[in-house]
Amino acid sequence: MTAKYSVILSNVGSCSDRYVTGGYAEPFTISELFERVSHIPQVTGVELVGTWHVTDKNVKELKGHLERYGLKLASIIPDHFGQMKWKNGSFAAKDPAVRRDAVAHTKEMIDAAVELGGNLVSLWPGQDGYDYLFQADYIEERDWFGEGLKEVSGYRPDVRVALEYKPKEPRTHSYLSTAAMSILMAQETGADNVGVTIDFGHALNAYETPAESVALLKKYGNRLFHVHMNDNFRHWDDDMIVGSVHTIETLEFFYWLKRTGYDGWLSIDQYPYREDGLEAVREGVDAMEAFVRLVDSIPSGEIEALLKSGKSPEIAAYLRKLLLSPVR
Amino acid sequence: MTAKYSVILSNVGSCSDRYVTGGYAEPFTISELFERVSHIPQVTGVELVGTWHVTDKNVKELKGHLERYGLKLASIIPDHFGQMKWKNGSFAAKDPAVRRDAVAHTKEMIDAAVELGGNLVSLWPGQDGYDYLFQADYIEERDWFGEGLKEVSGYRPDVRVALEYKPKEPRTHSYLSTAAMSILMAQETGADNVGVTIDFGHALNAYETPAESVALLKKYGNRLFHVHMNDNFRHWDDDMIVGSVHTIETLEFFYWLKRTGYDGWLSIDQYPYREDGLEAVREGVDAMEAFVRLVDSIPSGEIEALLKSGKSPEIAAYLRKLLLSPVR
Amino acid sequence: MTAKYSVILSNVGSCSDRYVTGGYAEPFTISELFERVSHIPQVTGVELVGTWHVTDKNVKELKGHLERYGLKLASIIPDHFGQMKWKNGSFAAKDPAVRRDAVAHTKEMIDAAVELGGNLVSLWPGQDGYDYLFQADYIEERDWFGEGLKEVSGYRPDVRVALEYKPKEPRTHSYLSTAAMSILMAQETGADNVGVTIDFGHALNAYETPAESVALLKKYGNRLFHVHMNDNFRHWDDDMIVGSVHTIETLEFFYWLKRTGYDGWLSIDQYPYREDGLEAVREGVDAMEAFVRLVDSIPSGEIEALLKSGKSPEIAAYLRKLLLSPVR
Amino acid sequence: MTAKYSVILSNVGSCSDRYVTGGYAEPFTISELFERVSHIPQVTGVELVGTWHVTDKNVKELKGHLERYGLKLASIIPDHFGQMKWKNGSFAAKDPAVRRDAVAHTKEMIDAAVELGGNLVSLWPGQDGYDYLFQADYIEERDWFGEGLKEVSGYRPDVRVALEYKPKEPRTHSYLSTAAMSILMAQETGADNVGVTIDFGHALNAYETPAESVALLKKYGNRLFHVHMNDNFRHWDDDMIVGSVHTIETLEFFYWLKRTGYDGWLSIDQYPYREDGLEAVREGVDAMEAFVRLVDSIPSGEIEALLKSGKSPEIAAYLRKLLLSPVR
Repeated sequence: MTAKYSVILSNVGSCSDRYVTGGYAEPFTISELFERVSHIPQVTGVELVGTWHVTDKNVKELKGHLERYGLKLASIIPDHFGQMKWKNGSFAAKDPAVRRDAVAHTKEMIDAAVELGGNLVSLWPGQDGYDYLFQADYIEERDWFGEGLKEVSGYRPDVRVALEYKPKEPRTHSYLSTAAMSILMAQETGADNVGVTIDFGHALNAYETPAESVALLKKYGNRLFHVHMNDNFRHWDDDMIVGSVHTIETLEFFYWLKRTGYDGWLSIDQYPYREDGLEAVREGVDAMEAFVRLVDSIPSGEIEALLKSGKSPEIAAYLRKLLLSPVR
Repeated sequence: MTAKYSVILSNVGSCSDRYVTGGYAEPFTISELFERVSHIPQVTGVELVGTWHVTDKNVKELKGHLERYGLKLASIIPDHFGQMKWKNGSFAAKDPAVRRDAVAHTKEMIDAAVELGGNLVSLWPGQDGYDYLFQADYIEERDWFGEGLKEVSGYRPDVRVALEYKPKEPRTHSYLSTAAMSILMAQETGADNVGVTIDFGHALNAYETPAESVALLKKYGNRLFHVHMNDNFRHWDDDMIVGSVHTIETLEFFYWLKRTGYDGWLSIDQYPYREDGLEAVREGVDAMEAFVRLVDSIPSGEIEALLKSGKSPEIAAYLRKLLLSPVR
Repeated sequence: MTAKYSVILSNVGSCSDRYVTGGYAEPFTISELFERVSHIPQVTGVELVGTWHVTDKNVKELKGHLERYGLKLASIIPDHFGQMKWKNGSFAAKDPAVRRDAVAHTKEMIDAAVELGGNLVSLWPGQDGYDYLFQADYIEERDWFGEGLKEVSGYRPDVRVALEYKPKEPRTHSYLSTAAMSILMAQETGADNVGVTIDFGHALNAYETPAESVALLKKYGNRLFHVHMNDNFRHWDDDMIVGSVHTIETLEFFYWLKRTGYDGWLSIDQYPYREDGLEAVREGVDAMEAFVRLVDSIPSGEIEALLKSGKSPEIAAYLRKLLLSPVR
Repeated sequence: MTAKYSVILSNVGSCSDRYVTGGYAEPFTISELFERVSHIPQVTGVELVGTWHVTDKNVKELKGHLERYGLKLASIIPDHFGQMKWKNGSFAAKDPAVRRDAVAHTKEMIDAAVELGGNLVSLWPGQDGYDYLFQADYIEERDWFGEGLKEVSGYRPDVRVALEYKPKEPRTHSYLSTAAMSILMAQETGADNVGVTIDFGHALNAYETPAESVALLKKYGNRLFHVHMNDNFRHWDDDMIVGSVHTIETLEFFYWLKRTGYDGWLSIDQYPYREDGLEAVREGVDAMEAFVRLVDSIPSGEIEALLKSGKSPEIAAYLRKLLLSPVR
């Protein structure tokens, strides 16, 4: 399979959590982050986050960074989650001014993406949802969500809008929670340029099999637009290094990406709380490459035969031989 | 709200698990099960399970039982899960003969339902899915599933077909896993008589808020056709007595049933491993009735105001006053 | 039961997460936080956090705040989690200098607690554990942990040291993970002044029944020293308002606190991301009070009889009558 | 590492669940099960289950089977879970006659084990616990549990008694829930011949890292007596083929078994609902052997260095190179 590797820019930097709010390492400037990305040879694209990286003032500067390092814009992730003003939601916020703001910011980011040579924005409306029972009019708020999506998808039909689902965090319950929910929401817009971003770890959190999510998006309208890679222990979005926990799920995921002809970006989305961000991304990319090579090396038809037979002892034996060879 | 209470017939009997395969109590005959149901005054309907209760030979006998006790048929749940032959699936089985069998049995159960005065079958294709990674062609098998559903929904458009979703068990992963997935599958049939059964506990297992699932089905085509009630500890389908764990979730669920104008059956679906089945169902029904009364007693507009404000300390205070009064 | 209500000082303020690192609301000064606490009449104690609230320079100032508002020091929670330097652990860090630092800081906080009129420190070694497989020598690091605990518990035997367990976050796996693990670790110190803090939500995260955890600590050495109250949706430490999700678990918890003669503090530990912190704490305290009153109002022997019979339909009926009365 | 492979006899047969109570395949006789085991060359021991396989009448017959196939008795698992009479518990049952029965049966199984050349019984008190809140006097019932364990461990000090923990199923909450709880309970008996059985899948269900559980049992009294192998998707005891989901966790587990000098049995405990039991066990054993070989092939000190450094990008890179080689 052809593979295009990218990374969310902040991933090579430092990060915070609710206990160490000032960060687990010293922060980097945007220039430094670009420079760090350039040390990973396979990476040819970056994803930028609204507000954090992209403002209405710095698009030219960002263009300079991209050109200096020969990087493409993989996507912009508009900021619907990173400021106090979004605390009660963005597209589905109870306050209509906030909803308008969410739409306006998205349009700005669409324009910025085009200016930076991109054709994709990946929306992660992480603040849209609720924390408490009896806190939301689930129908009305979802209607608002749909209206907002419709408006941003209609803004520039040549730019693809990918919806990144996640069952929870930062809210205890997200509206855009699963792959199937994302398909429903994409269909609701009636627009062809609305698709889905699978974040591998979010799929695990939703008790999805990530490979099955790829298949689902293929089946229902060929809607897989973008991929975020990481790993976790299933219960939470730990955002760990690719392949560090789920060897077989990751392998099956890459197999289905190939099988369904996915040709978008494979983008790192890790949170290196205690690691050097650059080292963690480098390994994440090396891992993706190793999975791609492994998938490509499997003789045609062998996996196909397993899927068709469904005999689990044979499947397990096949994977055992594939993965567990003694060190020579 | 108007409330019609029913029970899955086997719920007043005994049940088994994988360790005590012979049952945690002595079995009851079908006659005895009907007689036991008749001791619960609020119950006016029963659900019957294919093979377990309904065969091609005993429809008349069942009709007699229904008439003797003045019970209505709430639904038939065709058997797509209870025999060795379904072990690798029903509508989505790799074996085309099994798939045909699943369709044929469903049609028989539709006919039986009509003969017994019913207009609803509730499908729980629990064996459709997979256990192992690399075990299934997720697209092909989902296509088969959709074809089967289309065929059974087209058989008698006057009979409603409700899809009961559940994320896992007996397979480690079910195809019909969540409310959103059920909507997608219902839409795929293109038929108006295909809707959804919410099993309260299955929704919890899927990390859904059951009340939100009611709203979701209202929003996307008014597809809530049937309700199964029970409770659990979120991680597994424990099938416990209604209201025994999730007080607030259950309250919110009944509130949204009322709010969306649900007028179908409220049917007990519990597994009384260590309880007397009749006592457990009696309490389950009493609990449903208590929730209905509580919802009906709340002054109009009070909950509405909470949903609109979304202020959680006020919501929590309201619920505290509603639920926690010292014993007089 | 007698009940002493306290609150972790920062709970009436604002808080951050990994996306909104600057906080979901404007920050408050320590003076302001104390003033805010004083508006909740039932609260007679506060818990202070090392570094965040207590430094080697401000103990006198804190004493002034306590005196001004007539508040007692419920405990100090030493800082083993809130600075970059703890990122790889505190008592169990691989770096011996960090381990020494963890011990030294704890001793300082013990001294500060005594100076502020307290006799309890509650340790939450949240950074002790690991994120990745193959990342830790589980025996050696646990040995270090035990040595550190031994040293701090021996420092002033008149001060109680409570261990607050939590299965994960901020690490994917914590060493001090469950109630049983805490007992093992307390026993390992050989000291009588080492006990346990139950955080209600952490117990839920560990799939413990919080009431059972109270019983367990009673049985194994009467080790329940302190209580942190909040609520969540079981899978994560959502730190929500007390009683907002788990009505029955919270009730049973207070029943067992009474039954086992717990006479320590009942302390709020909530994270009001989107709420006003003062309003959220006020409601949390009102909720604790409502549970205490409800438990106290239950006629003696009624619950006892349920526990002895174990008949779940009767238990469910009892709770239904206790909790679900229509609004008058 | 030296490795002794065994299997629970029923694993090569068929099994049931709560829906297909009659079994997913035709049952086998005990003779047939032994014969089937003999087809797996690496297997030199079997585990037998009380009632299912061992009665007071058939010990000689079992001896004949063992001798015929040159198999050793790895352990007997007394029946504390498989009959209606245990439905409310065994050692912790509210009914004192049932508690006496649990002790008496265990002693009989100890005698049978000795007669069959064994020196280990593995207790899985799966029915001891509770389903509902407010259903149990947690202190009294745990005291009964401890008394029963004390009695059976004192019966024949030359026979080892291993406690197999599991957080839930068949009860919603088990008393013997985690590795740490098992250590507490073993300590409570004051007996040296009480240790622990780690079931790999149960450890995953408890959000333990299985390798860490091995280390924990080493640290607290060298109490790892027995191992049951299988795999699952973390949330439930799916009892799948060894290594079919958790490649890295399984590898780390075998590494720590070697590191701590474990020299007991490695016993298959799978539930082949839809597989041929013999084929599934054969693959499970082949997988264990592959993990043992892989661990043995790793140059001494390499893993040690990773554990000491704790640097996750290096760890991930090491594992990537170990596991992901393109097919040649």
